[in-house]
Amino acid sequence: MSIVVVGSVAYDAIETPHGKRDRTLGGAATYIALSARYFAPVSIVAVVGDDFDPADKALLSSRGIDLSGMEEVSGKTFFWSGVYSEDMNDRTTLATDLNVFAEFQPKLPEGYPDAPYLLLGNIQPALQRGVHSQMKHLRFAGGDTMNFWIRDYRDELLETIRTWDFLLINDSEAKMLAGESNLRKAANKILAMGPNTLVIKRGEYGAMLFREDALFVVPGYLLEEVFDPTGAGDCFAGGFVGYLAQQGFDLRHGHVDPQDLHRAVIYGSVMGSFCCEEFGVERFHTLTRQDIDQRFEEFRRFTAF
Amino acid sequence: MSIVVVGSVAYDAIETPHGKRDRTLGGAATYIALSARYFAPVSIVAVVGDDFDPADKALLSSRGIDLSGMEEVSGKTFFWSGVYSEDMNDRTTLATDLNVFAEFQPKLPEGYPDAPYLLLGNIQPALQRGVHSQMKHLRFAGGDTMNFWIRDYRDELLETIRTWDFLLINDSEAKMLAGESNLRKAANKILAMGPNTLVIKRGEYGAMLFREDALFVVPGYLLEEVFDPTGAGDCFAGGFVGYLAQQGFDLRHGHVDPQDLHRAVIYGSVMGSFCCEEFGVERFHTLTRQDIDQRFEEFRRFTAF
Repeated sequence: MSIVVVGSVAYDAIETPHGKRDRTLGGAATYIALSARYFAPVSIVAVVGDDFDPADKALLSSRGIDLSGMEEVSGKTFFWSGVYSEDMNDRTTLATDLNVFAEFQPKLPEGYPDAPYLLLGNIQPALQRGVHSQMKHLRFAGGDTMNFWIRDYRDELLETIRTWDFLLINDSEAKMLAGESNLRKAANKILAMGPNTLVIKRGEYGAMLFREDALFVVPGYLLEEVFDPTGAGDCFAGGFVGYLAQQGFDLRHGHVDPQDLHRAVIYGSVMGSFCCEEFGVERFHTLTRQDIDQRFEEFRRFTAF
Repeated sequence: MSIVVVGSVAYDAIETPHGKRDRTLGGAATYIALSARYFAPVSIVAVVGDDFDPADKALLSSRGIDLSGMEEVSGKTFFWSGVYSEDMNDRTTLATDLNVFAEFQPKLPEGYPDAPYLLLGNIQPALQRGVHSQMKHLRFAGGDTMNFWIRDYRDELLETIRTWDFLLINDSEAKMLAGESNLRKAANKILAMGPNTLVIKRGEYGAMLFREDALFVVPGYLLEEVFDPTGAGDCFAGGFVGYLAQQGFDLRHGHVDPQDLHRAVIYGSVMGSFCCEEFGVERFHTLTRQDIDQRFEEFRRFTAF
């Protein structure tokens, strides 16, 4: 069943200890869509400039990603540039040129409001809320946010996530949002803010799922080479929601076995790990569904006891 | 089957965001022994001063820990003092007074050399080697080390661990020992140094086991309150070796199912988590084997998919 993905489509300049790229396809919606598409149909809501490379559009189209909600306007596409530290655990942003993204007003083409799954990338909370309110048959809706919205748009953010089914953020953001340094306590506070499902991403240390009826923790996949962690969190989100959409679970109205949510977290972890193996979205040029399912089984082997 | 534990028995002054203790029983051998004793017989090799409190000796004796190798000499017992940061992830050492520990020369009483399991706490590598060479019927031997020995006693340390079955260190020490920032690569380098089993402790993020025939990763237990992490790594070691000794596995001469090693890592994680729940060794005043087995099953619930 299909997923509507809202967020940035961008160009990135990335430097890691393994090399650099001056201009490579990026943006949260791009990573989420490419990742989720291995599991379910995906429709994008985004904006790009008139400099958007037809080859990049062709890449997304070739995967059967519905781009009717990806508006093309006059001006430049969102551009981000960053450098990673030697151990890849820190990155310094060199430039964030919002360009056409500064005026982004998500518009849903016909058919989009009928999609049962909604994954809102990290954008202004009011815009996230605007999209959410237009969806008519949701089975699972939610998204991501970041420190900037938590700090400077707190009330708007709280109003936005109040009606979400899930929130997907990293550990430092969870602590900031809850005002609580213990993750277990922070998670309980966040679950009281609205979402019934909270996924906390911990980078190389893995991920955690919190619900009233479930607690699940998975360690990160141990890569021999982390080429480029850009987009790994978004690919996690794509795998997580993608698996639930593939199975057609109605988490809003029905009961879902917590084990199925655990598996969704594993698929998220699998997709995040593949993302790091090459620069930008390059790993998705060759990745197959078979590779994904093999790594899922590998997760089982190295965590079972 | 019984375990010989070598290391410090000390007094600690500890301050955490939850409170402080001015003088509480501590030291690697203390934590290891108290933890391992839930699984198997334990004999300590250590030194204390004439200020050692009979009540502390009585605590260890009451657990049936063999103290015939705990020498009492004139002078003060090893004293350590430290303060933890707000999030407990950093600590500052305020004082390390070696006292009688400065002249520690481990002596093995009769019977000790027949024990099949040896767990060497973090002391001078030459002393660790001296004890190891006296053991006659080993089934599994190894221990811990730290950045100081890795940096300033590297050759001696390498000569020492060359004949160990297992090495148990934290992630930053593993990277330092291997000269490699990627943990998977670092682990392969360390396995080539001698030990066939490497356990890497990651504090709140859990632990990993590396062998030629096994890779196992477990996330940390999510405590609602970390009162005091002092000794958690040593309690992990005690649970890890304790479980293997309880089962009587001969890892030096026979084959062991990797799943049994996985379970040993879980018991280590369980013991480390309990250690953090109260100050110093206080949690062990009330902890039961039933509590331990219940938490083992809890680990299964929050990691299975």
